[in-house]
Amino acid sequence: MTDLVTPTAADREDAAAVRSSTVAHMKWWGWGVPGVAFHHEDKPAFAPFVLKAVGIDLDGTEPLAQPDFDRLDVPASIAGEALRDALAAAVGADGVVDGDLDRVVHTYGKSIRDLIKVRAGRLPRVPDLVVYPADEAAVQAVVDAVVAHDAVLIPFGGGSNIAGSLEPVPGEPRPVVSVDLGLLDRVLGIDERSGLARIQAGALGPSLEAQLNERGWTIGHFPDSFTHSSLGGWIATRSSGMQSDKYGDIADITRGLHVARPGGLLELRATPSASTGPSVREMILGSEGRLGVITEATVQVHRVPAKRVIHAYFFPNWRAGSAAMQQIAESDVHPAITRVSDGRETGFSLATSKASKGFSGLAQKGLFAFLKRRGWDLDAMCLSFIGYEGADDHVARQRKAVERIVKRNGGVSVGTGPGVLYDQKKFDTPYLRDFLLDRGTVGDVSETSVPWSGLDAMHDGVIAAAEAAYASIGRKGWIMSHLSHSYHSGACLYFTFAFVAQDDPEAEYDVVKHAIQQAFIDLGGVPSHHHGIGLEHAEWLPDVLSDPGIGVLEGLFAATDPGRNLNPAKITAS
Amino acid sequence: MTDLVTPTAADREDAAAVRSSTVAHMKWWGWGVPGVAFHHEDKPAFAPFVLKAVGIDLDGTEPLAQPDFDRLDVPASIAGEALRDALAAAVGADGVVDGDLDRVVHTYGKSIRDLIKVRAGRLPRVPDLVVYPADEAAVQAVVDAVVAHDAVLIPFGGGSNIAGSLEPVPGEPRPVVSVDLGLLDRVLGIDERSGLARIQAGALGPSLEAQLNERGWTIGHFPDSFTHSSLGGWIATRSSGMQSDKYGDIADITRGLHVARPGGLLELRATPSASTGPSVREMILGSEGRLGVITEATVQVHRVPAKRVIHAYFFPNWRAGSAAMQQIAESDVHPAITRVSDGRETGFSLATSKASKGFSGLAQKGLFAFLKRRGWDLDAMCLSFIGYEGADDHVARQRKAVERIVKRNGGVSVGTGPGVLYDQKKFDTPYLRDFLLDRGTVGDVSETSVPWSGLDAMHDGVIAAAEAAYASIGRKGWIMSHLSHSYHSGACLYFTFAFVAQDDPEAEYDVVKHAIQQAFIDLGGVPSHHHGIGLEHAEWLPDVLSDPGIGVLEGLFAATDPGRNLNPAKITAS
Repeated sequence: MTDLVTPTAADREDAAAVRSSTVAHMKWWGWGVPGVAFHHEDKPAFAPFVLKAVGIDLDGTEPLAQPDFDRLDVPASIAGEALRDALAAAVGADGVVDGDLDRVVHTYGKSIRDLIKVRAGRLPRVPDLVVYPADEAAVQAVVDAVVAHDAVLIPFGGGSNIAGSLEPVPGEPRPVVSVDLGLLDRVLGIDERSGLARIQAGALGPSLEAQLNERGWTIGHFPDSFTHSSLGGWIATRSSGMQSDKYGDIADITRGLHVARPGGLLELRATPSASTGPSVREMILGSEGRLGVITEATVQVHRVPAKRVIHAYFFPNWRAGSAAMQQIAESDVHPAITRVSDGRETGFSLATSKASKGFSGLAQKGLFAFLKRRGWDLDAMCLSFIGYEGADDHVARQRKAVERIVKRNGGVSVGTGPGVLYDQKKFDTPYLRDFLLDRGTVGDVSETSVPWSGLDAMHDGVIAAAEAAYASIGRKGWIMSHLSHSYHSGACLYFTFAFVAQDDPEAEYDVVKHAIQQAFIDLGGVPSHHHGIGLEHAEWLPDVLSDPGIGVLEGLFAATDPGRNLNPAKITAS
Repeated sequence: MTDLVTPTAADREDAAAVRSSTVAHMKWWGWGVPGVAFHHEDKPAFAPFVLKAVGIDLDGTEPLAQPDFDRLDVPASIAGEALRDALAAAVGADGVVDGDLDRVVHTYGKSIRDLIKVRAGRLPRVPDLVVYPADEAAVQAVVDAVVAHDAVLIPFGGGSNIAGSLEPVPGEPRPVVSVDLGLLDRVLGIDERSGLARIQAGALGPSLEAQLNERGWTIGHFPDSFTHSSLGGWIATRSSGMQSDKYGDIADITRGLHVARPGGLLELRATPSASTGPSVREMILGSEGRLGVITEATVQVHRVPAKRVIHAYFFPNWRAGSAAMQQIAESDVHPAITRVSDGRETGFSLATSKASKGFSGLAQKGLFAFLKRRGWDLDAMCLSFIGYEGADDHVARQRKAVERIVKRNGGVSVGTGPGVLYDQKKFDTPYLRDFLLDRGTVGDVSETSVPWSGLDAMHDGVIAAAEAAYASIGRKGWIMSHLSHSYHSGACLYFTFAFVAQDDPEAEYDVVKHAIQQAFIDLGGVPSHHHGIGLEHAEWLPDVLSDPGIGVLEGLFAATDPGRNLNPAKITAS
C-alpha cells in the first residue's frame, strides 16, 4: 500500500473506537483502515482521465464530509435476556456486544451498495448482538444457543463481502446475531511433509500469510480483498485469488474443514482426493453460512518460491490479448498469473501511474511513439501481466515460452517495472472506489466466467449492455475489463464500472448492475466467478443451475437448517 | 488387449444372447467380453509366482467349469402391469425387458464379491425390470414413472462398478427398475474453441474416445475399467483415471451436467469455474444415482498430444520410489502418469511378462546382475512408470527433469519397452482376476488416498493388517501395492490382494477386505480414492465425514428423494 495516504494519530484513535475484544474492523462507512485513503496529487493523468470517463472535474469537486456516526438512527437491539445469557455463557460476557457502532459495522459488507446505504443511514435491520467467540468450542456453543433460542446467525470474517452475504434480511422478526470470527486467527500447525496447514477460519490474509511465511510457506491465495478478508470468508464464498492460475481457487486449496453445525462439529478429514460424493466439502465451499460456521480449515501450502516475478506486455488490441491468454492456457506452460486488460482499463492504468514511475516518463513516450509508428491504436492497446514463480531456470523457461506466444499475437514485452508497481498497488482499488464515492461517483465491479468460444462476445456484449443502461438513466458512465483467470475451457472476465449518480444512487446503480449481470447470463456466463452469490446475485442462479438445481439447494438448506436460523435467504430466498 | 485369448464364434453367439436393444453386456458371471480370457502359457514365471504367493499349483489345478445360467434360481419379477405400462410408454415396449439373463446381468457390478455371489446363485434381489431409454426425454419419463409408481430406480452404465452401487437392496419390497443407459452413447458436439464436448452419459470409454479421436480430441480419462465403464458411471462414482495427474479426475473434467430428476431435468451450465456454492455439480459427482440419472455431461477435452510416452524406472526400494514421486509432485514438472509399484507388485509384474518381451530375456538378466552388483535387493526393487505428453521438446524437458529426481533417489532408467507393454495390458487385470477365481483364488483391489506424511506408514500398515487378517482365517495370502496418483498434499495407494478361499469365500474375503479398509481409516486415509462408496465402503464414511457430515448427506437425500425411489441405501443407509 505504498500508494496511499496513511493514518494519523487521530485516525488510529478512531480505529481503536471500533475495536472490540481486540478485533480490529474497517471504517463503518468505507473500505479499509481509518485514515488510509487514495490520493492523486502525484498522478497528473488521473483527473483528466476521470473527467473524460464520467464527466466529473476532480479539481472543482469538494469531497463530501466524512459521514457522522452520531447522525445515524440505529434501531435498538431486540435481543432478549435469555438469548444474551446463553451467548454470554458461550463466549463470556465480554464477548457479547450490543453497542451501536459494533452493530452497524456488522450490518453490511463493503459493496458500493452497502456503502451507499450505510452512509445514507439506511439501516432497516442491524444485528441485535455481535459475539466474539475465542475458540472453536465457543463458536459451537454460539450456534447451539442461537438455534435453541430461535434466533438468526450470520458469520462475519473480515467484513469485505460485496454480494450482500452479511446483512440481516429486512423484516426479520427474530433476534439476529453476527458471529465475528476475528479472535480465531492462528495457524495451528503445518504438516511440512505434506504441504498442509491447519488454520483458524477468522485469520485475515496478512496474518495467516505472515504466520506461514515465518516458516517458509505460503498459501498462494491473494484475492483483491486479501488485506481485510479471512480464510473462512474465502471458503464460504468459494473465492479465487490473483495467483489462482498456479495455486488453484480456494476450492482446490481447501482439503479439510471444521464447521460448527447445530448439534455438533462437522469435521472433514483432510485428504489429497477422494471419490466420496455428494461432496460435503464442496457443499461447505460457497455456503455463505447457511450450513453452519466454518471454524477451521486444513489448506494446501507451498514453499515460498525461489523466484517470483511479474512481467508486463502490451498487445495491439483485445482480440490479440485474449487469444494469447488462451494459447498460454492450452500450452505446456503454467504461469502463476495470466491477466490482460482491455484498451479502456489499460488507459485507466496508465492514468493512475505516478508521474515519475511505471509507464510514465521518457521511456514510455519512446515506446508509445515506436508502437504508433508500427500502426498501433494506443487507445485500443492492452496491458497484460504474466506472473512466473519457481526455480530460476523454470521461471526463465516459462517466460521464454510465454514470450513466443506474446510475439505470435503481435505483443511486445515491457519488462518488470509495471509488474512491480502492480504488485505493490494490487490491493488499493477499493480505496480508489471510496475516493470516487466521496465525490459522487458510484463505482463497482462485476465478474463472470465464460468458455473461450464466448469470451470476446461476452466482453463486447457486457460493455454494450452497460452503455445501454447508462443511456437509459441518462448518465455518462464508464466500464472497463480485464481477463483475470485462465482455465482449460475458458476464463474469468472482470468488469469495473462507474458513473456520477444524480437523484437516487442506489436505484441508478441497480439499473446498471442488473444490465451487466443479465448480460453475463445471456452470453453464457455465470452470476459470479469469485464474489459469491449472497443476496446480490441470487436472482440469476436459476439461470445456471435450472429450477431443479435450485430445488436441490433449497432441499439441502431445508433439511440441514429446518428452523432457518443460519443466515437465511442468502444464495436462495427460501 | 494383445495379451488375452480372443472370442470364438460360439463365444460371439453367447455374447449376442446377452444383448438387448443393441446394448452389449459383459459376461453375467465375470468381467469382459465372452470368450476373452487371461492365459499364461507364454509367461513361464507366472505359475511359480502364484505358487509362491498364494500356494496354488496352477499346473495341477483344473479350472472350474463355466457356471451354467440355467442352474440359477432367478426370482420372478414383481413388477405389476401399471408400472410396466408406464415404462413402456416412456421407452417403448421393446425397451422394457424382464428376461432372467438381462435381469441377472443388471443385479451386480463386477467386484469379486459380486462374482462370488452370482456364480453361487446368490440372488436375494434382482431388478424386476430392465429398461433401455433411447434418449434423454425417455430417461426423464422413466424417472417420473418410477416415482409415480413408488418403485425403485438404479442407473446402470457399463456395469463395471465394484463398490456395490448397482445392486438392489435385499428385502426391497417395491419393484426395482434397472435403467440401462447403453443407448445414450453419442458425442453430441465439440466446442473446439473451448475444448468442451457434450457427451451422452451411457457412452463407454472406447466409444466416446473413438468419437473424440476422430476429430483429433481426447477426454484423457482412462480408469482401469475404461473398456466397460461409461461417462455417467465415472461421474456418478467420482472416478479417476490413469492419466489424471495431467487431465484431472472426472470431478475436474466435468463442467456441465444434465440429470433427470423427479419432476424435471436438472441442467447445470458448463462454465470454466464459478463461485456458486454449495456446488450442485459436486453433489451430482459421486452421487451414485441417489439424486437422479445423469443423462449428459459437458466435459473438458484436449487435443491428442503430439507425443505420448511412458518411461520405466527401477528404484532400489519403496521409500526411494515414494520419495521420488513426492519430489516430482512438488517440482515444476507435470507428468501425465506418476506410478511406482512396491517390491511385491514389481515381482508380480516381472512374473506376468512374456518370456520373449519386456523385462525378460538377456537384457533383463544383464540389468539385474548389474543392480545386484550395486548392492540392490532385487525383491525390494520397485518398478515405476512415468508418462509424458505434449510437444516433443516439452516431453524431452520433462523427462530430463524427472530423471534428475529419479537419479537423486537412487533410481535407474529402464527405457520405454516396459511402458509400451504396460500401456497395452493396462486394462487386462480384471481378466487375470477372473482366471484366478476360476481356480479358487479370491483376488480384489482396495485403494485410498493419504497425505505424503502418512504414505509409507499407510503402505506398511495395510500390508500388516492384511497379513494379520490372513493369519486370522488361516489362509496363505498375498498383497501388493502401487502409488497410482500424485497430488500436492499426498497420493493414492492402490492395493491388490489374493488368497485361496477354503470354506466360505465371501466370509473369508470380508475379513480381509474389512481389515484393509479399517487400516485405511486408522492410518489417515479415505474409504476410496476412485472406486466410490456404494454399499461396500459406506461403513467407513462417518470416519472421514463425521456424524454431522453424514447428517448433511442424509438430509440432502431425504429432501431430494423423500420417497427413497432413487437407488436407496447407497452411500448412506438412510
